[in-house]
Amino acid sequence: MRWGLIGASNIAAGHMIGAIRGAGGDIRSVLSSSADRAKSYAAEHGIAHGCDDLDAMLAADDLDAVYISTTNEKHFAQAMAAIAMGKHVLCEKPLAMSVADAVTMVHAADAAGVVFGTNHHLRNAGSHLAIREAVAAGRIGDVLSVRVFHAVYLPPFLHGWRLDNPGAGGGVIPDIVVHDADTVRFHLGEDPVDVVAIDAASGLGQGVEDSCMSVWTMPSGAMVMAHESFTHAYAQTGLEIYGTKGAIIARNVMTQRPIGQITLRTASGEEEIGFSDHNLYARALDHFHAAIKGQGRPSADGIDGIKSLAVAAAVAKAAKTGQRTAVDYGGV
Amino acid sequence: MRWGLIGASNIAAGHMIGAIRGAGGDIRSVLSSSADRAKSYAAEHGIAHGCDDLDAMLAADDLDAVYISTTNEKHFAQAMAAIAMGKHVLCEKPLAMSVADAVTMVHAADAAGVVFGTNHHLRNAGSHLAIREAVAAGRIGDVLSVRVFHAVYLPPFLHGWRLDNPGAGGGVIPDIVVHDADTVRFHLGEDPVDVVAIDAASGLGQGVEDSCMSVWTMPSGAMVMAHESFTHAYAQTGLEIYGTKGAIIARNVMTQRPIGQITLRTASGEEEIGFSDHNLYARALDHFHAAIKGQGRPSADGIDGIKSLAVAAAVAKAAKTGQRTAVDYGGV
Repeated sequence: MRWGLIGASNIAAGHMIGAIRGAGGDIRSVLSSSADRAKSYAAEHGIAHGCDDLDAMLAADDLDAVYISTTNEKHFAQAMAAIAMGKHVLCEKPLAMSVADAVTMVHAADAAGVVFGTNHHLRNAGSHLAIREAVAAGRIGDVLSVRVFHAVYLPPFLHGWRLDNPGAGGGVIPDIVVHDADTVRFHLGEDPVDVVAIDAASGLGQGVEDSCMSVWTMPSGAMVMAHESFTHAYAQTGLEIYGTKGAIIARNVMTQRPIGQITLRTASGEEEIGFSDHNLYARALDHFHAAIKGQGRPSADGIDGIKSLAVAAAVAKAAKTGQRTAVDYGGV
Repeated sequence: MRWGLIGASNIAAGHMIGAIRGAGGDIRSVLSSSADRAKSYAAEHGIAHGCDDLDAMLAADDLDAVYISTTNEKHFAQAMAAIAMGKHVLCEKPLAMSVADAVTMVHAADAAGVVFGTNHHLRNAGSHLAIREAVAAGRIGDVLSVRVFHAVYLPPFLHGWRLDNPGAGGGVIPDIVVHDADTVRFHLGEDPVDVVAIDAASGLGQGVEDSCMSVWTMPSGAMVMAHESFTHAYAQTGLEIYGTKGAIIARNVMTQRPIGQITLRTASGEEEIGFSDHNLYARALDHFHAAIKGQGRPSADGIDGIKSLAVAAAVAKAAKTGQRTAVDYGGV
């Protein structure tokens, strides 16, 4: 599988180049808005071509697929260009700056017959797969509530547009709420209905929120509370799901690494739940490659990306307006 | 100190009769709306007089103080009657059905020169005293956020008006949000500004909410998320406070018992914080008796009771309207 990287990003360098290659992919080219950056990044990572011209990149190298990890405002045009050239697209979250744009992207991919995936890593984690399995098996009965703890300290090497550029999709809501929305959807198998939220800039954000707390309702009646932040140096991540027959308490699982600890609490007491420690991104790539070959779906597809963005958009709107806000999934 | 019990309640039987006597108080009489209930309760607990006539009770026995633990809609008239007779009043939470009534009660007590206390037990716990001390000492720096976990399964012997009688002040918001509001105020030394909330009936509530999730802002910029429920059989309570220099993680501390575990996490690592295991209600009584003698204040006074009720009222209004709601403290 021949890949092009759209975006000479930290996430590609840290996770995705290895994952693509590990899955047998051949990375032919990398795009950056800076030709110099593209060339140095290509040299550093052993990629043949670095360039700043998307059309040229898409026309060359006979690429099968592209991985888009530019800043958020660029995803739409880049994905549409790649789809138009018949490339399969694996796109970072959030898919776009608006739900409508995301819907357009995903519909275009469907019409073109290319595979479209959203790079939600968490649902690829062994921890989350084990949690979903436990919930689906009824081990905690009917779900009453979920608590998502995703307040972290944004690593200094990522301080940049996420903290000061709303036009690039900065802020903790587009960056992290999408992950929490996807994770809750994954575990409960249903989509949030409406939300209330408050956001804040608490030390790092300049013109964008760096912290958010929100409450969501689910069709089943389950309630969700979520806390995202870039400013919390001493918080651990976690996910807790409470049901009528038990609870799942997962610590340190809202992370890119295959770590964490899961406890199942029922009337019988507490037990640890084991899980696979495979690389999250490697699993995503395996599924994406398989989908290209006509076997199954990406672990998170375009609809999943639209829906996680829709929840984040509702949270942002609720925080801005102070009103309980229905999630608008754009008709999907 | 001669006491009368207004309300032949479970909380008096389970905690307050022992606490009053332990503090040297003499319980002379108990009032119930049922004369039979009053007499059987009096006999069971070794109280000389059981009656159903508040005026008669207040006129007899030369009482110094009354403890009010009737259903919430009765607190106002009973407290006003006791104050008018010059009795010191220790009143269960929520103080009244409205902030305005609570303000009237507390102003009346001030005007009459009697001591007025609100029976918020949590701030009397060794755990919470240790947490407040750690926060005040700056051990976690500036507070960024608080998470309050107070979802429990309402003990079956308390299933009754709390689950089906809005007119009596049933529902989890008047019952538990007031405790969480008082606790957050106690730890942060500031009063919530505004809130968003969603409530639900998730299995037990009939005509009242049995679950609530809310988000509050604080004057300092700190954010608070709180989860209260009557339906969670497999949740533990907890309180987490995150600061710029550390975090306090307290488990099993939102309880009437002197239990729990507190962890302080800083750049140096994690350490357990020890705390006194004294009886929460005994400490409240010691402070109340001292206040009657002119020494200090009740551990939670009337203003504290007004403010915890005001936060709960704002949460209820926010849940009902879907709007971000300013907390109206009634001018205090």
